[in-house]
Amino acid sequence: MANTVEVVAIGSELLAGLSVNSNAAYLSRKLTELGFQVQRHTVLPDDEDILREGLAESLHCNTLVIATGGLGPTLDDLTKNVAAELFASDLHFNEEIAKELQLRYGKLATLQNQATVPSKAHILKNKLGTAPGFMFSEHKGTLIILPGIPHEMKEMFENEVAPLLKKHFAFEERIFTEELHFGSLYESQVDPELRELKEEFPELRFGLYPREGLLTVQVTGSDPDLLKAATSRISDRFAAHLFLSPSGRIEDAIHALFKQKNSTLAIAESCTGGALSARITSLPGASQFFLGGIIAYANDVKIQQLHVSKELIEKYGAVSKEAASAMAEGVQSVMKSGYSISVTGIAGPDGGSDDKPVGTVFYAIKRGSSPPLVRELRGYGSRSMIIQKTINVVLSELYFSMIA
Amino acid sequence: MANTVEVVAIGSELLAGLSVNSNAAYLSRKLTELGFQVQRHTVLPDDEDILREGLAESLHCNTLVIATGGLGPTLDDLTKNVAAELFASDLHFNEEIAKELQLRYGKLATLQNQATVPSKAHILKNKLGTAPGFMFSEHKGTLIILPGIPHEMKEMFENEVAPLLKKHFAFEERIFTEELHFGSLYESQVDPELRELKEEFPELRFGLYPREGLLTVQVTGSDPDLLKAATSRISDRFAAHLFLSPSGRIEDAIHALFKQKNSTLAIAESCTGGALSARITSLPGASQFFLGGIIAYANDVKIQQLHVSKELIEKYGAVSKEAASAMAEGVQSVMKSGYSISVTGIAGPDGGSDDKPVGTVFYAIKRGSSPPLVRELRGYGSRSMIIQKTINVVLSELYFSMIA
Repeated sequence: MANTVEVVAIGSELLAGLSVNSNAAYLSRKLTELGFQVQRHTVLPDDEDILREGLAESLHCNTLVIATGGLGPTLDDLTKNVAAELFASDLHFNEEIAKELQLRYGKLATLQNQATVPSKAHILKNKLGTAPGFMFSEHKGTLIILPGIPHEMKEMFENEVAPLLKKHFAFEERIFTEELHFGSLYESQVDPELRELKEEFPELRFGLYPREGLLTVQVTGSDPDLLKAATSRISDRFAAHLFLSPSGRIEDAIHALFKQKNSTLAIAESCTGGALSARITSLPGASQFFLGGIIAYANDVKIQQLHVSKELIEKYGAVSKEAASAMAEGVQSVMKSGYSISVTGIAGPDGGSDDKPVGTVFYAIKRGSSPPLVRELRGYGSRSMIIQKTINVVLSELYFSMIA
Repeated sequence: MANTVEVVAIGSELLAGLSVNSNAAYLSRKLTELGFQVQRHTVLPDDEDILREGLAESLHCNTLVIATGGLGPTLDDLTKNVAAELFASDLHFNEEIAKELQLRYGKLATLQNQATVPSKAHILKNKLGTAPGFMFSEHKGTLIILPGIPHEMKEMFENEVAPLLKKHFAFEERIFTEELHFGSLYESQVDPELRELKEEFPELRFGLYPREGLLTVQVTGSDPDLLKAATSRISDRFAAHLFLSPSGRIEDAIHALFKQKNSTLAIAESCTGGALSARITSLPGASQFFLGGIIAYANDVKIQQLHVSKELIEKYGAVSKEAASAMAEGVQSVMKSGYSISVTGIAGPDGGSDDKPVGTVFYAIKRGSSPPLVRELRGYGSRSMIIQKTINVVLSELYFSMIA
């Protein structure tokens, strides 16, 4: 039997749709790496009764429950008390925690609250914030509680939780997961191949996850040799579309390539409106190769900042192969970069025509003194889907052109 | 008794942490508006047994369950069959759906699959994709199934589901929700006020949700007059920090203001790396007022594209009030905009110093020929938290300066 885990997020702001549960994604990747099987994500409200019932049920169904959120000092933070009640634990004021908090934050108004902890819980240190985490472990199961603030949660998972889990859990059957990430490849191209592999390797589980212009294949199983055999079949079959990124994000792969090639990048974007550059700069170390970008939303900016000629725009339109090509030339020349990329298109929902419907996007990739490689892509769906697909396609094509 | 609802997302890619469950946030906002109480979010894997058990349990606990995902034609799409089994329904080939799909997509390989539907379900039309949705309704509860692709799901919810829900559900006790959104206001300033209001209005529920430099107060209750009394107390008390946005997003408020004032905006950004402009351009209609932006990551780009003097950078540093001010002047002058904003800072995790630690950010807001308003802010936590807080603070301060 594998060790199953449920990831619980606590917070009415998630149920109100005010924020998105990104903690669950982080924890799931980490727990999968450790060999757990993530069985379910749950979001529960800041409501004592629902919380108690929800956590009890999660504990009943899984070997491990990791819950985040509701550890703050404000009126709707109830997680600590509910968890203590579930494990029939009283709370006590912990001098050591109080001392440490005082050392770091001085006379903290919420000190009394944050240093009061369940007696039965193992305390998990929070180096970056005021709320400690807790691990309860009894015959009924193991419950780990972490703060909801992402960087505190992540630091605590890495340094406090992961070592505990490794010590605490024996894996009779260790589950291994392999992921392969592809660009410019369709679900319908890979699906028949996976169906065949499923026949051939009935012990393995195959998942096929399209993500706005990218595609991830996930293979899961307990036999590393079988896993290796199946994944190399897939990566060989679609080698031309494969990119290497531990996170699955194409921008990770781009960072690695630029650092390896010791080159620089400049970006000119119109319809992606800054989001293309933002994907590159979302990762640390971008300044080692990314010089900058010009977001040329208005035509005047294309003309004056990117030196696209007015005549070109009048003749072909701002959304055209010609404009994309001139934008890539322009941004490379003003920023003096090794590589440049450009994007111009119609992200919608308005602005489309019969000739160039919403989702029409042209992009160019330019390297050194070579002429730009200019392509068209077609996005579908909402504005955000069109923008995300454009970014993924442009960055994966940049990747493929750089390793070619 | 209020009508409770659980929002279920189906897809192993979510449990693998490859994507984030954004559908749940959208549905939660819509369902809250309709008067439902969103009790729980759940994510379930593409696994027949777990899916069957999970959906049965959700139906058991709620009046309504809305599930998304797993309706495609590939090997891991199981939702339709599992739901049919739960409601003891057979499946049949629906000629009408088949005809319509053929009309729209021609000879579709997956036609047979997509036109085979549970006999007991009410069919929900999908105008934007191939997978129809389903509504099962029996004594055991109501289950609505929609595709996981966001724009298909949203179109179907608006046009098919919302009218059905209004007809289908009687609300003995209708739950109303009011939200107030604030900028540059701390949780600790609002918390005491809410505790007082909670004493005074024990019938209402108060939620306080900080979001990287913004703060949302949510008040919920069944008596609209009480709700109004409580919310106006809060909005009066913190009027100087209030911004008006139906979505709670500051960029929505900025869009409305610029259209109302008929002015234009240009952006110069360094540490936010394009993400500030991307927030503005994430909404349709940005081209009505947003001219463009310059992402000046390298100092040379600040000097050449934004006309920040080399001497200024040498004297004060690229992360300084002086640089922020010069960047706002520069981008306004090259793009000839009514307003301009600029940001320079250290997003980390590297690049900090004793003098200017990670999270140090300077920004400037410039309007017409007035001198720039220059401010400092301090971000904490991860790179992404620092970037998001910077964007929220800069945009909310732009908003407050525009309505002042």
